[in-house]
Amino acid sequence: MNYPSLLIEEAVNELSKFPGIGKKSALRMVLFLLKQQNQDVERMGNAIIKLKQNIKYCKVCFNVSDNETCNICANEKRDQQTICVVEDLRDVMAIENTNQYHGVYHVLGGLINPIGGVGPDSLNIDSLIARAKNGQLKEVIMALSATVEGDTTVFYLNKKLMETGIKISTISKGIAIGGELEYADEITLGRSIVGRIPYRG
Amino acid sequence: MNYPSLLIEEAVNELSKFPGIGKKSALRMVLFLLKQQNQDVERMGNAIIKLKQNIKYCKVCFNVSDNETCNICANEKRDQQTICVVEDLRDVMAIENTNQYHGVYHVLGGLINPIGGVGPDSLNIDSLIARAKNGQLKEVIMALSATVEGDTTVFYLNKKLMETGIKISTISKGIAIGGELEYADEITLGRSIVGRIPYRG
Repeated sequence: MNYPSLLIEEAVNELSKFPGIGKKSALRMVLFLLKQQNQDVERMGNAIIKLKQNIKYCKVCFNVSDNETCNICANEKRDQQTICVVEDLRDVMAIENTNQYHGVYHVLGGLINPIGGVGPDSLNIDSLIARAKNGQLKEVIMALSATVEGDTTVFYLNKKLMETGIKISTISKGIAIGGELEYADEITLGRSIVGRIPYRG
Repeated sequence: MNYPSLLIEEAVNELSKFPGIGKKSALRMVLFLLKQQNQDVERMGNAIIKLKQNIKYCKVCFNVSDNETCNICANEKRDQQTICVVEDLRDVMAIENTNQYHGVYHVLGGLINPIGGVGPDSLNIDSLIARAKNGQLKEVIMALSATVEGDTTVFYLNKKLMETGIKISTISKGIAIGGELEYADEITLGRSIVGRIPYRG
């Protein structure tokens, strides 16, 4: 496409790097920026730059944090003997929003994906093994996506953690609450029958 | 939503100001930024800031431009006696892409929208009238959206330009090329019958 200005072309090229943002959406974003006040646009640009420059990761669980240790790891009321293993901070936020979990987390920073070039070494796995070997843990909960990558990662972690003797569990999979059977996909439905649980009436 | 870091919260709030970007999409964009190199994120942030600080508008047609006069207005091969009136630079780019128009443009910067608080005074209308009164023009083409706001703006401009005696036209409206009649909406189809044109076989 021919842009009337090099500045616009550069901004469109940069914004279209975001996942899910194409050139047309980026141009719409650029037009939006042009209609804003100078100081508002500066604040947005600086928020992006500051985010990357100043972000810290918790030295215990690798969740993002404003301090050396994140609020969850530093909270003495949380059960420090239960670790929930997740892919990234969105999963931490999603689980925190349920108000059903009171342990701590370990953020892998991704899932094992040989095709995408992500091996175990590029994830925060060694630190998880170290936490497990520390001997204070009761349980490690695998809360990873129900995808090939998630299953592969659970399989790998399970093999690594087995020798510690710690209880390893995964979040339950099956029909969504409120979901109707006839609309469930057949793999989920099949798994939910094979993996049925005793009725606790 | 509770964010684990103030930096993330700030970046999410800023990015979700973009039209069509909600908090969830903004968080996805933030996670993308965290995975990029420092210098790449800085380049994106600076592109946004530079865009707004350094952008210029053509003093003749108000299209964005890197110079005082845009490439189209400065081009002597273009027909300077025909002005195409458009809403914003996207329309200029769309019409330029057709390779069917060889005149110049006038960018209004919006459409008259009393409900949205956009009156004629906040658009580049006075400068259009001044160009028309200059006496060099043959034709003004209204290429505005076929919406209430577009029609209102054409009506207003027509009233203002009438006294100059310049030929005023609008782009034709009707069935899209390649479009099938049965899928056209009834208003478009109705208008295309009422506004039928002689067959030039």
